[in-house]
Amino acid sequence: MVLPHLSEPPILKELGPREVGRSTLWPRCRGSGPGRRAREIPLYTLDIRTQTRTECIDVTEQVQRVIDEAGLRQGAVIAQVPHTSAACTLNESADPEVGRDLVNYLDRLVPKDRELYGHEEENADAHIKTSLVGSSVHLIVERGRLVLGRWQGVFFCEFDGPRDRKMHLQLLRSV
Amino acid sequence: MVLPHLSEPPILKELGPREVGRSTLWPRCRGSGPGRRAREIPLYTLDIRTQTRTECIDVTEQVQRVIDEAGLRQGAVIAQVPHTSAACTLNESADPEVGRDLVNYLDRLVPKDRELYGHEEENADAHIKTSLVGSSVHLIVERGRLVLGRWQGVFFCEFDGPRDRKMHLQLLRSV
Amino acid sequence: MVLPHLSEPPILKELGPREVGRSTLWPRCRGSGPGRRAREIPLYTLDIRTQTRTECIDVTEQVQRVIDEAGLRQGAVIAQVPHTSAACTLNESADPEVGRDLVNYLDRLVPKDRELYGHEEENADAHIKTSLVGSSVHLIVERGRLVLGRWQGVFFCEFDGPRDRKMHLQLLRSV
Repeated sequence: MVLPHLSEPPILKELGPREVGRSTLWPRCRGSGPGRRAREIPLYTLDIRTQTRTECIDVTEQVQRVIDEAGLRQGAVIAQVPHTSAACTLNESADPEVGRDLVNYLDRLVPKDRELYGHEEENADAHIKTSLVGSSVHLIVERGRLVLGRWQGVFFCEFDGPRDRKMHLQLLRSV
Repeated sequence: MVLPHLSEPPILKELGPREVGRSTLWPRCRGSGPGRRAREIPLYTLDIRTQTRTECIDVTEQVQRVIDEAGLRQGAVIAQVPHTSAACTLNESADPEVGRDLVNYLDRLVPKDRELYGHEEENADAHIKTSLVGSSVHLIVERGRLVLGRWQGVFFCEFDGPRDRKMHLQLLRSV
Repeated sequence: MVLPHLSEPPILKELGPREVGRSTLWPRCRGSGPGRRAREIPLYTLDIRTQTRTECIDVTEQVQRVIDEAGLRQGAVIAQVPHTSAACTLNESADPEVGRDLVNYLDRLVPKDRELYGHEEENADAHIKTSLVGSSVHLIVERGRLVLGRWQGVFFCEFDGPRDRKMHLQLLRSV
């Protein structure tokens, strides 16, 4: 099941696995069904398997593949993370040190120490990092391509891994 | 008046008061008027009364009630806070300690001390927290229901209360 | 060229220069072309020249001028920054000290010291600030006007200037 609210079997479009950093992405592009292809705002989901407690994973290529698969030519994609201990952001994709700098910095800024927080699940820091970075990013699409700056990429931010994670991609299609 | 830009009388749909945490929500669902029901992007507003200087208030149920009331089946809701000393975020709603951890952490991270800032209104910290957490969240709707992760809820974040606050809800309706 | 993905010559609509703080804005409103005026989701770009390493620039008036120029009456504008060392946010525009407080606070929170980071470009701090503040803001439009709170303005946040920068404005038009 893609979403708890959807009872119909989702379409699993296997786009092939790919190694990204230390994480394996399952870029299965789960669309909302063939009858929905004509809809304005279809929903897709990426599966992401993270490998460490905190890491940034570049998913730009996977997002572009969903755009290709959906045939979106002009509009927008909203990437949304349905977790409370993971986030997403836009940042530099050319140097993988930038993503590592971000999670290392957040590890220093928001210590994991249990006694600092009321939440007893040992991941209170991950919840705080999630609200600092944010759960969604807006992406512009023109002529079938993501409109990103020269150095920009789309990142999934894991703050309490390793886990199996998801990123929803909602497409806004211009008519 | 809902918005300074709207001169027509807004429709006040009383959905009933509800106690949420230490705050009373006025989930009056103010639509943009009957003639606009057919529009693509209607606007609603939640009234929220906060009780302390800094707190997180779970408004997930109120947002879902607006979706029900508007009859939105598939699309998105943008929750937007029209204040500069309050924000909104997605985070865990199961344990209320998570919201308290967030505001307590931000209180430590951004001290209130007047002498640290140029702004003289005694709420410079609240403005900074607002930009760290952000003023809007994107919410996915499928089959009339918010698409949230198992633990996710929508939170209004007060950083300079207690005050009467608003949260705008803009609906993007799929055709 | 506005965007690398667009091969057609963009329309340059000179709206006139304007001094904003210590920065000069080039509020050239670059639309997506005359044939696209009828499209649902047109794209515009503001040019912004920043003057110092870190500063907040109020671009609210420029965004409103694009809305006027595009004839957008009801819908939304997504402001998106295509850089990895600059961001955008909503915050108080009445007192310019608020924007200065924000960048000064972030300068203290995320030190520039080279030895703290793996990224070797001397701007690792700018990348981290970008993910803390975020790359886009959602703006509501009703009756041709931005729906903002009384004190709210739209800010471009420079973290590694001075540079020539851009802010994309994607318009979601209600039908």
